[in-house]
Amino acid sequence: MSKKYLDKSAILRLQNKKAALPTAELFVEKIVSGDMAYLSRAITLVESSQPKHQKLAKQVINGCLPYSDKSVRIGITGVPGVGKSTFIEKYGLYLLEQKHKVAVLAVDPSSTLRGGSILGDKTRMQELSKSKNVYIRPSPAGNVLGGVARKTRETIMLCEAAGYDYIIVETVGTGQSETVVHSMVDFFLLLKLTGAGDDLQGIKRGILEMADAVVINKADGNNKTLSGLTKLKFERALHLFTAKESGWIVKTGVCSAIENNNIDIVYSWVDQYMKLTKNNGFFEKNRKQQLENWLFETIEYNLKTDFYNNTEVSSLLKKILIDIEKGNINPFEKANDLLEKYKNQ
Amino acid sequence: MSKKYLDKSAILRLQNKKAALPTAELFVEKIVSGDMAYLSRAITLVESSQPKHQKLAKQVINGCLPYSDKSVRIGITGVPGVGKSTFIEKYGLYLLEQKHKVAVLAVDPSSTLRGGSILGDKTRMQELSKSKNVYIRPSPAGNVLGGVARKTRETIMLCEAAGYDYIIVETVGTGQSETVVHSMVDFFLLLKLTGAGDDLQGIKRGILEMADAVVINKADGNNKTLSGLTKLKFERALHLFTAKESGWIVKTGVCSAIENNNIDIVYSWVDQYMKLTKNNGFFEKNRKQQLENWLFETIEYNLKTDFYNNTEVSSLLKKILIDIEKGNINPFEKANDLLEKYKNQ
Repeated sequence: MSKKYLDKSAILRLQNKKAALPTAELFVEKIVSGDMAYLSRAITLVESSQPKHQKLAKQVINGCLPYSDKSVRIGITGVPGVGKSTFIEKYGLYLLEQKHKVAVLAVDPSSTLRGGSILGDKTRMQELSKSKNVYIRPSPAGNVLGGVARKTRETIMLCEAAGYDYIIVETVGTGQSETVVHSMVDFFLLLKLTGAGDDLQGIKRGILEMADAVVINKADGNNKTLSGLTKLKFERALHLFTAKESGWIVKTGVCSAIENNNIDIVYSWVDQYMKLTKNNGFFEKNRKQQLENWLFETIEYNLKTDFYNNTEVSSLLKKILIDIEKGNINPFEKANDLLEKYKNQ
Repeated sequence: MSKKYLDKSAILRLQNKKAALPTAELFVEKIVSGDMAYLSRAITLVESSQPKHQKLAKQVINGCLPYSDKSVRIGITGVPGVGKSTFIEKYGLYLLEQKHKVAVLAVDPSSTLRGGSILGDKTRMQELSKSKNVYIRPSPAGNVLGGVARKTRETIMLCEAAGYDYIIVETVGTGQSETVVHSMVDFFLLLKLTGAGDDLQGIKRGILEMADAVVINKADGNNKTLSGLTKLKFERALHLFTAKESGWIVKTGVCSAIENNNIDIVYSWVDQYMKLTKNNGFFEKNRKQQLENWLFETIEYNLKTDFYNNTEVSSLLKKILIDIEKGNINPFEKANDLLEKYKNQ
């Protein structure tokens, strides 16, 4: 292929291949100064599985840490069709008006399976992506949630160091991925629809309990009255839950992203939430708790990966699973057998 | 202490100390023939932490396995004061009338901390405990949920081999323990109260979603009308959840255990549930799934125990947790450090 058919970024990639990688110090300096190209390259390092890249990525993250942790992190979820991209576009534009810098990330472990990331197509947020104060990054490749989550978590740190003070983490409604996003954000927003598109009865178990706010989107035209009723139903359901540790009372509302209507309520809720939780100490406590949880989860994820990838363990495990399928066995005894095999190597 | 001050069971224990332990074959033979004393001794073996006892317990369980798996397993939860013991007593007596044999077990990891098991006092179910067709066993000692759960799970197997065809597993409302009980039963019953004693708003996250039935107890006297309203509220809330994989529609009802009123509805629900799930294949699928889950949980529990008990790991971990408390760190890098320490030993 001749060079004239390559686009700009492809040329950049070719050049990068030839050039040596920048030092960690240069990366940190450029990222902290707000250089978007270096931020992107650092995130690519984070996403790379090459040991050389991994090592450099670690150094870059460590260098960025003192500059991170200064943002508001917002998780947004909702089933496909609920209007997440339109909502994020309008919400992002509103944040820009308030002089914020916005990063939009995604956690979508199935993206490679479905042949494309939920945020792969920047045209989905065309207006928002034009601004120099916005950084949009699609979901990292990978179909293992743990890996995708780790990369997203590290990407948050890098974006914060680059001065983005609103980090929006989007996810599709797969249950597991929502729990993961919830564990890396301060405020968790659930987008819903009224009517057939997103049936009230079809709400995923546990999602509602994680939400700090539930917003019925597409409350426009004929949907307006119905959306208000749906909002009330959610309000009633939310009353059944115990009070949140944050002291926050979960908010419900309606909006129309497409008509750019009522998007600002989310902004003011997040603002109230931040004030409340910074005052009562929950914000800091929660962030530390999240770091601790990430530590333990990563430990245990790596430990399990090492265990199950052990060839002797996996062949014995296969036999045990066939035994379970065949009839009644004592799982506790079999678990011990597996561990002995693992330890005696 | 002279022998005349010892009660019967203490004398039995002294005799056991002197005598050799019965063989696994004898244990199995006696248990399968319905010998309650041998069943109790086998459960004591399961609960013992002595390697000799553990080994024998394994053999006994393996011998009993072909005779187990023939019961209905019912989990019952509710906060203290909801009337669990009275309910279980009345429900148990009803089951006896229907010619069933009933075992009542408990999962209560905090029991040792609170200085007594929730089922330690058999006088709580005085009438029920009189019957030769009832076996009541308090929660095994231990404050680690994993350990308590494993022992309870193995106890279920032994009770089933002894011919108990209704296994009731009781737990207090601590959240974690309910998930564990849910993972070892076929049918999960949530007991609630109307009014101040057990506020609707105070419902633990996730518990409602596990329930196959919600029954408002103490629906007697002045509480009767209010209990009906509370039942309706639950019905409405339950409608928000997705359909259960079992195909079962969650039931709601009111009862008065103390007046022995409406206890039979639970019996008929469980009966319907068993018919439905045995017909549609969910029953068998769920039991196999539970065995698999127990296998993986035990593996991972043991793996983690071994890791965190490692002295080098635990001292490094302490330092890392202090670092988290002090400020921002990268948990992923620290997790790797810990694993390297563990593997390089």
